[in-house]
Amino acid sequence: MDRRSLIKHAGIAGVLAAGAAPAVHAQATIRWRLASSFPKALDTIFGAADVFTKKVNEMSGGKFSISVHPGGELMPAFGVVDGVQQGTVEVAHTCPYYYFGKDDTFAMGTAIPFGLNSRQLTAWYYDGNGLKLFREFYDQYNIVNFPGGNTGAQMGGWYRKEIKGIADIKGMKMRIGGFAGKVLTRMGGVPQNIPGGEIYQALEKGTIDATEWIGPYDDEKLGFYKVAKNYYYPGWWEGGAQVDFYVNKAAYNALSSEYKAIVECAASHAHTTMQAMYDARNPAALKRLVAGGAKVQAFPKSVMDAAFKESMALYSELSASNPNWKKIYTDYSNFRKDQNLWFRFTEAQFDRYMQSAKL
Amino acid sequence: MDRRSLIKHAGIAGVLAAGAAPAVHAQATIRWRLASSFPKALDTIFGAADVFTKKVNEMSGGKFSISVHPGGELMPAFGVVDGVQQGTVEVAHTCPYYYFGKDDTFAMGTAIPFGLNSRQLTAWYYDGNGLKLFREFYDQYNIVNFPGGNTGAQMGGWYRKEIKGIADIKGMKMRIGGFAGKVLTRMGGVPQNIPGGEIYQALEKGTIDATEWIGPYDDEKLGFYKVAKNYYYPGWWEGGAQVDFYVNKAAYNALSSEYKAIVECAASHAHTTMQAMYDARNPAALKRLVAGGAKVQAFPKSVMDAAFKESMALYSELSASNPNWKKIYTDYSNFRKDQNLWFRFTEAQFDRYMQSAKL
Repeated sequence: MDRRSLIKHAGIAGVLAAGAAPAVHAQATIRWRLASSFPKALDTIFGAADVFTKKVNEMSGGKFSISVHPGGELMPAFGVVDGVQQGTVEVAHTCPYYYFGKDDTFAMGTAIPFGLNSRQLTAWYYDGNGLKLFREFYDQYNIVNFPGGNTGAQMGGWYRKEIKGIADIKGMKMRIGGFAGKVLTRMGGVPQNIPGGEIYQALEKGTIDATEWIGPYDDEKLGFYKVAKNYYYPGWWEGGAQVDFYVNKAAYNALSSEYKAIVECAASHAHTTMQAMYDARNPAALKRLVAGGAKVQAFPKSVMDAAFKESMALYSELSASNPNWKKIYTDYSNFRKDQNLWFRFTEAQFDRYMQSAKL
Repeated sequence: MDRRSLIKHAGIAGVLAAGAAPAVHAQATIRWRLASSFPKALDTIFGAADVFTKKVNEMSGGKFSISVHPGGELMPAFGVVDGVQQGTVEVAHTCPYYYFGKDDTFAMGTAIPFGLNSRQLTAWYYDGNGLKLFREFYDQYNIVNFPGGNTGAQMGGWYRKEIKGIADIKGMKMRIGGFAGKVLTRMGGVPQNIPGGEIYQALEKGTIDATEWIGPYDDEKLGFYKVAKNYYYPGWWEGGAQVDFYVNKAAYNALSSEYKAIVECAASHAHTTMQAMYDARNPAALKRLVAGGAKVQAFPKSVMDAAFKESMALYSELSASNPNWKKIYTDYSNFRKDQNLWFRFTEAQFDRYMQSAKL
């Protein structure tokens, strides 16, 4: 090699070295859009999408950026699953159970009446068969899912009148999430589908007798305690409601292995911190609600028992008619049985002692 | 520009383009060592360090790699905090409460008797003041910490004789973790410090009367049920024991913002999945232990009350003598009070119903 060639090659080596400097990024630039099913006002749930996209952005040095769009901005709040399936957006942040109309199996992805609690559901997803089974199920919808938050056990809602027994459920008009409405119907109640913004007025006027929403932190914002003081627990239809990130399969598969892992871990961070937000913020909200006149009461056992019986009967029927449901529910219900066998000992006893202790 | 120059520049452009291909990475290559306090046999806890390093490696495309070393390999299992402080290793995976001898404040980082449960502790770290307060506290030790797993509420251990009241605690020799030993001593018990590998023999021979370890999944491996059948709950000194990743401050500060976020989210993923592993795996282990003869029993209320009273008295003394303790415990205990106020309603009632339901 002559001197001239040497210099030329040295120049190229210098360029290559410069190419390895932090200013130039190896990974492709990615721009995604995330459609949330939630309004910005639900800062805990909607906020989990912000946490997710912020972390993806940070971990990729700004090369992989995802814009977040509240429910209704790009598409209807409950249209986001179709948006992801069709690739209109690359990712959605939503509750799987909104889509039980497509297949009741979706409901198990968030919460079913008398289902797993928050920790148990996370355990089923990550160390049981939950994620594997749901990835298989969602494949037909072009979705790759990631757990993306949990609300914890929700409250049982706001009632204009006290619930003293199953007779008070008969004919009761209640705004309640879709799948749980099936159980309420079987109990003699009348589920109502009312947009979030119209619930307060309907409850005030008596167009509906009751409504459920989430828990103290979110419920407080909607002011239901002013028009229906009876605040019941537990929300037996949502013992731990999970939100998912739904990623379009083709968009996901096109990612580098680095970005795939970044999506996974950013989702885990959002999953952990959303539950933390609810747990940390609910207590003060509950105190304010009680100070505002909310009367916190437990559902009578007869109501819980009727709801449990109807839920189990519904699950039997679904297992007989829907192979997707049967496959996942068989695993889910076995897991649930074991979880409750174990949690009743040290977890429950520790918590019970702490809850009655003079702290 | 003449044709020759054009060709030359095109060549350089080509090289630059090649430099942007996935094979060349912009981020600096980082090699860290992680010292775990745990043996490989504790696959759930030790495994969380593997999860963490695997995800850091994946997210960085192999540019940021961390080797994992079990307890004793690079330094003594409980010497890892000094290793991180001095920069001998860049990261440790350990339980803060091992270091209560340096300052009792460390104990709150994992678990203190009658403390927060797993979800509550995570909530305090991520949405309360926990992480902020501990980052300030650890700064003097050159540590930046990240929650890195939780065991959930542990069991209360294995006892050769039944515990019917506080009289059975007096003089009882028990292998128990350090900080909790302070409370046991105040109750009249005699805490023993015995390496993990020697506990079984000491328990078999009667050199000790009891031992605590973790929960069914880990306890089963050590076989204690063969020599001390009474398996008590709850482990009131560990209602949710957290493991942390301790990162050397200088090493952390030298990371790019991308790698800092990658460390944070990989830790969150490990935090979430470690709790999931324990929750998913404990039930089957408990069933096997019971089949093997373990007698699962609740501590009498008198024992719980004595332990609670002594714990609160200890915390008062520490608050009076240790400003670090006082600062963090004041926040921690207020948070704990609110958490238990809230959790007693819908979370506890939902769980209680499920635990008594015919599933």
